[in-house]
Amino acid sequence: MANTLRESYNKTNYKLGNHGKRNVQVLKEALQEIDENVESDIYGQGKIIEDFQEKMAKLLGKETAVFFPSGTMAQQIALRIWCDEKDLGKVAYHPLSHLEIHEQDGLKKLHKIETILLADETRVIELEDIKEMENGVACVLLELPQREIGGQLPSFETLVQISSYCKEQGIKLHLDGARLLEVLPFYQKTAAEVSALFDSVYMSFYKGIGGIAGAILAGSREFTSQSKVWKRRYGGDLISLYPYILSADYYYEKRASKMAEYYESAKELAAFFNECEGIHTLPIVPVSNMFHVHFELEKAEAEAILTAVQKMTGIGISGYINVINENASAFEISLGDAYKDIPTEIVREMFGVLSGKISEVRREK
Amino acid sequence: MANTLRESYNKTNYKLGNHGKRNVQVLKEALQEIDENVESDIYGQGKIIEDFQEKMAKLLGKETAVFFPSGTMAQQIALRIWCDEKDLGKVAYHPLSHLEIHEQDGLKKLHKIETILLADETRVIELEDIKEMENGVACVLLELPQREIGGQLPSFETLVQISSYCKEQGIKLHLDGARLLEVLPFYQKTAAEVSALFDSVYMSFYKGIGGIAGAILAGSREFTSQSKVWKRRYGGDLISLYPYILSADYYYEKRASKMAEYYESAKELAAFFNECEGIHTLPIVPVSNMFHVHFELEKAEAEAILTAVQKMTGIGISGYINVINENASAFEISLGDAYKDIPTEIVREMFGVLSGKISEVRREK
Repeated sequence: MANTLRESYNKTNYKLGNHGKRNVQVLKEALQEIDENVESDIYGQGKIIEDFQEKMAKLLGKETAVFFPSGTMAQQIALRIWCDEKDLGKVAYHPLSHLEIHEQDGLKKLHKIETILLADETRVIELEDIKEMENGVACVLLELPQREIGGQLPSFETLVQISSYCKEQGIKLHLDGARLLEVLPFYQKTAAEVSALFDSVYMSFYKGIGGIAGAILAGSREFTSQSKVWKRRYGGDLISLYPYILSADYYYEKRASKMAEYYESAKELAAFFNECEGIHTLPIVPVSNMFHVHFELEKAEAEAILTAVQKMTGIGISGYINVINENASAFEISLGDAYKDIPTEIVREMFGVLSGKISEVRREK
Repeated sequence: MANTLRESYNKTNYKLGNHGKRNVQVLKEALQEIDENVESDIYGQGKIIEDFQEKMAKLLGKETAVFFPSGTMAQQIALRIWCDEKDLGKVAYHPLSHLEIHEQDGLKKLHKIETILLADETRVIELEDIKEMENGVACVLLELPQREIGGQLPSFETLVQISSYCKEQGIKLHLDGARLLEVLPFYQKTAAEVSALFDSVYMSFYKGIGGIAGAILAGSREFTSQSKVWKRRYGGDLISLYPYILSADYYYEKRASKMAEYYESAKELAAFFNECEGIHTLPIVPVSNMFHVHFELEKAEAEAILTAVQKMTGIGISGYINVINENASAFEISLGDAYKDIPTEIVREMFGVLSGKISEVRREK
């Protein structure tokens, strides 16, 4: 059944989410205007990597920045540096942090760093969670937006309060800003204004930006210089990272200015979903380009409906759906360039079909 | 002075070593014939990565293989797996192993693995070194060829003996085969025949093959399946590794069959160097495509000579030279496609000029 859903999704002409297919053309397009004589970066040095790091440091308002092959590597290293500085192997983050659920416990296995889980799986971290946590962590990591709960955000005021509290307490504050650019339209702040609240910042190049892979880690010169040593230790200091850097830069230039558009699209699309009986989005009103779509139907039913709607309308809604419980299922959607390609009328029609299908199933129950 | 040497090297029309410049054209060439619709690998899955891993497993005669962004990552992980299996955090390798001198002690800092250094800095590891080592290591790592001593090799018989000894003793044997293909013409063996002596094998794609970056780690299904978990922990399980995989495959197809040619070129070129008074190569007769060139001159003198010769002849010999002691200096050379582009007559002429310059300097002493 899952394969049928995936197949029907792949065959659609339009997709609600993302920027299009992740195929080799993504790389070819990024390279098209690059002079073939441009020289590779070599083990972290050279114009390609240095220029881009400087550009990203400036964007984030930090002294320096280092390009990493992945955020997993960058963030573990950031936390390790803060732990070493305080000689205290303990950090705190959300129970659904990427580090907690998607990295095979790399932080714990490679660094023996203990973790304290803040808030709970239904909501973002608030100031009180940090004030109430047991004493003694080297660093708190905040993820903006909190992806696994649909991309939710604390208020900017909360961020400011958390930042001053951590400063007072001598706790370092690290930003998991995989989707940092995506939250700026909601906060109405620059990347530097958000980053100023944090001691170190990570940002990804293949989420809203839609690059091939890669991440930036920014902070003080002392911090990034230590991070380069760890990058070498991890085997992340590749002889050539330029395929990722050139595409990160290309798609950054192409899409960084479109985050407000993606955010507006997300709000529009979420409203369409919320009009369907038996569907709601999390959050109800998105605060970035992403949200989760929850079906009040068991997975198999939702799957059958999505498959049918995709086949009938040619609009790709999702290629998968996860079990939430025996009566509920959900998938994630991130808005990008693809949404604007679909005439609004066709989107509306699709939602008509979707609504009808859901009513049918619910009536039969 | 170092910059002058580098500059003069960069300006030459011909180079003795390597395959040409490491510029963006290297990637563009690899992608040229790839259909733009080919889909990216996704977090270690998909046709691009699975096909290539299977091809490399077959080449190396192992059950399975995993593509890694770097050899640093792949090898630390291999050693960790063998240590965990034996519940013994100790391995043995050469004092000039990549892990010991080029990885900022990643193995020790990330895994708390202790190391025993075998043989000494002047020679390769022999069976006796392993027999005499203190009891209790989980794994021995052999690097073929031993790069930091000019790319030397033990005899194949020694490898066979070491392999059986380790098997008897329950010690895992790992191959640092960064330059594995490069040693096959000397051994007159296939990659699988060499690999059969080892429990796990790493091979690089940007040495003799001249790709952009990336490595393969091969072994049993159980071993590689564990290595994938660690690859995720390291942040090496990138959403898309295809820029490296496609170029690895392209240059593998282009150059794997040319290793004998590079080896012959290396022997020819080393002989030219050894004819110059005051120069000798290590080894005297190369056993792969690489060797070191030693000047019986202090670094500054050798640098001045190399700079002058490169300017006069337009042939790039080296862009750097390292201090060996106050009366000796050396650089490394690896033969690739570039050497065949230089008419032999011009190479001979260059060596005439080089010889003359050295004699001049030595007479003045």
